[in-house]
Amino acid sequence: MSILVVGSVAFDSVETPFGKVTEALGGSGTYFSTAASFFTPVNLVAVIGADFPEEHIAFLRSRHIDLAGLQRAAGRTFRWQGRYGYDLNEAETLDTQLNVFSDFSPQLPEGYRDAEFVFLANIDPELQLEVLKQVRRPRLVACDTMNFWIAGKRQALLETLQHVDILVINEGEARQLAEEPNLIRAARRILGMGPRTLVVKRGEYGVLMFSEHSVFAAPAYPLESVFDPTGAGDTFAGGFLGHLAANGNLEEGGLRQAIVFGSVMASFTVEDFSLNRLRSLDYAELEERYTRVKLLTDFSGLS
Amino acid sequence: MSILVVGSVAFDSVETPFGKVTEALGGSGTYFSTAASFFTPVNLVAVIGADFPEEHIAFLRSRHIDLAGLQRAAGRTFRWQGRYGYDLNEAETLDTQLNVFSDFSPQLPEGYRDAEFVFLANIDPELQLEVLKQVRRPRLVACDTMNFWIAGKRQALLETLQHVDILVINEGEARQLAEEPNLIRAARRILGMGPRTLVVKRGEYGVLMFSEHSVFAAPAYPLESVFDPTGAGDTFAGGFLGHLAANGNLEEGGLRQAIVFGSVMASFTVEDFSLNRLRSLDYAELEERYTRVKLLTDFSGLS
Repeated sequence: MSILVVGSVAFDSVETPFGKVTEALGGSGTYFSTAASFFTPVNLVAVIGADFPEEHIAFLRSRHIDLAGLQRAAGRTFRWQGRYGYDLNEAETLDTQLNVFSDFSPQLPEGYRDAEFVFLANIDPELQLEVLKQVRRPRLVACDTMNFWIAGKRQALLETLQHVDILVINEGEARQLAEEPNLIRAARRILGMGPRTLVVKRGEYGVLMFSEHSVFAAPAYPLESVFDPTGAGDTFAGGFLGHLAANGNLEEGGLRQAIVFGSVMASFTVEDFSLNRLRSLDYAELEERYTRVKLLTDFSGLS
Repeated sequence: MSILVVGSVAFDSVETPFGKVTEALGGSGTYFSTAASFFTPVNLVAVIGADFPEEHIAFLRSRHIDLAGLQRAAGRTFRWQGRYGYDLNEAETLDTQLNVFSDFSPQLPEGYRDAEFVFLANIDPELQLEVLKQVRRPRLVACDTMNFWIAGKRQALLETLQHVDILVINEGEARQLAEEPNLIRAARRILGMGPRTLVVKRGEYGVLMFSEHSVFAAPAYPLESVFDPTGAGDTFAGGFLGHLAANGNLEEGGLRQAIVFGSVMASFTVEDFSLNRLRSLDYAELEERYTRVKLLTDFSGLS
């Protein structure tokens, strides 16, 4: 089952204590699509500028990502510049240039309108709504958002959430959206806003998934060297929803396995700058870490 | 199998966003003993002042904690005063009065010297060494420490660690002790300092246990109302080592189950001030949460 994603394709300039990279391939749509492509075909809706090089297009194609929805506009591609300290959990944004993204109006090619799985990456909730209006009868809609929209476009976001099955956000965003410091109560409040399922990303502490009658805790895969956390959240979402779309089991058990695949996928992204690690990743490596997470969490007494 | 603990017995005055309590029963030895007493007999070595009331003695006795090692000295009992904000992960210490604790020299009653399980709570590493010299042939020694000793008594601490099987500390302390920001690398470095096993407490993010060939991740039990985190770490250690001593299985599987029992025990402590929640806790409640943690972490696809 293919998956439709609307998000950003960008150039990222990133500095960490371990190195730096300038204008590398990035963006939520890029990370998501690449991660999901390990499991299922992906249709990407995004905008790039005149300066976006053919080699990146070729890379996306090599991942079997359909680019009929990738608009090319006059002007420069979206650029983000950020820095991380030794505490790699939070980026300091140094510069954001929306460029062609500031006039982005997502137009779905006719063939995309029957999408069964939809991911609305972290963009303006008004654009997320525009996309949803163009999709006919999706089986599952997931979305991401951020502090900027929670504070600045709360009404539009709440309207979007009415149409969303799975919300994927980080811990601070969950607390901010619910206006509640306790995460468990915050989760319950968010489940009252529309989503059936809330997935809370906690960086090196893993993921919590909340639904009406259950909570699932997945640890992060323990890494000895985290090189650059940029894109981890979108990679997670791509692995999670890609696995879900491929597997088709939307019950609790299927969701949980997909969460672990997403988490494991993200553990590779952070091992190198940009999408470099995903370029060389193969499916057997993913499965190996998936198995290790099983061992990591087992307390049946049999290990 | 009984367990020997050396630690503090104190009066805690605590303020959280949800209430306050003045000169309530506290101290690492108190929390540890009470938690461990759910699983196994406990021998407590500590010092109290002339002002320590009979009702607290009676409470400890009611938990079948042996008090032959509880010295009463002239002067006032150890007092600690602290405050928590909405981020309940870290206390702000407002006042510490060591009082009788400042001249504490742990003396083990003869009957305690054959202890097989020993826990050295967070006290001066020189005192921890004094205790170890009085114990004949322990089967398992565990200890806790804190930033103050890591920075100020590093040599004595490193000597103590040579005789310790299991070190139980929090995440920041692990990084500080290893002088390494990455926790996985920090853990490996600490395992080179003596302990066979390192248990890292991460508050609401759960616990990681490291040994030479394995890592175990246990989530914290998700709580809707954390009232007062004081004593959570010592309760965890008491539940963990109490279960271990009772069960006697020191293999990886036994350690992991004990970790989850400790974690679940701590989830009760934080639901009320002081040891109030532990006073009314029964074993069936513990087992119920233990079972829930199994469901919380299961991704076998069967749930």
